[in-house]
Amino acid sequence: MRYRVLVRLKPGVLDVQGKAVESGLRDKKFSAISDVRVGRVVELEVQGSEKEEARAQVDEVCRLLLANPVIEQYEIQELS
Amino acid sequence: MRYRVLVRLKPGVLDVQGKAVESGLRDKKFSAISDVRVGRVVELEVQGSEKEEARAQVDEVCRLLLANPVIEQYEIQELS
Repeated sequence: MRYRVLVRLKPGVLDVQGKAVESGLRDKKFSAISDVRVGRVVELEVQGSEKEEARAQVDEVCRLLLANPVIEQYEIQELS
Repeated sequence: MRYRVLVRLKPGVLDVQGKAVESGLRDKKFSAISDVRVGRVVELEVQGSEKEEARAQVDEVCRLLLANPVIEQYEIQELS
């Protein structure tokens, strides 16, 4: 089963990458674009588990390795 | 209108971050997880445009600033 994890900064945490993109956009005259937030997307394959168990594994991986719970939040999507 | 852009390495391009995550998972005994791919997710707000025009702007931003077309591909999702 394949999963996608979106890891993003929590609302209120300063997104330096997002600000850099906004600044780059202003320089290129894209003035209609704002509120840019940058995060990570991780896609991974879980083999040979029941659906609930697989999702629980992905959740554990997120907490252990993929997201920093102090400043980031994550969202798990099932792809197939 | 808010859009989400997923930027990922093209298939076949070595994903060093993904390999590092896999290695970290092996160390932590998550042997059922494989084929990890890491990319970026960018969410942005486009103000005051028609839907088609807004999407065209996001597409242009991807090509100019968010993705490296040599090694990366991107996918645009409409959020609202």
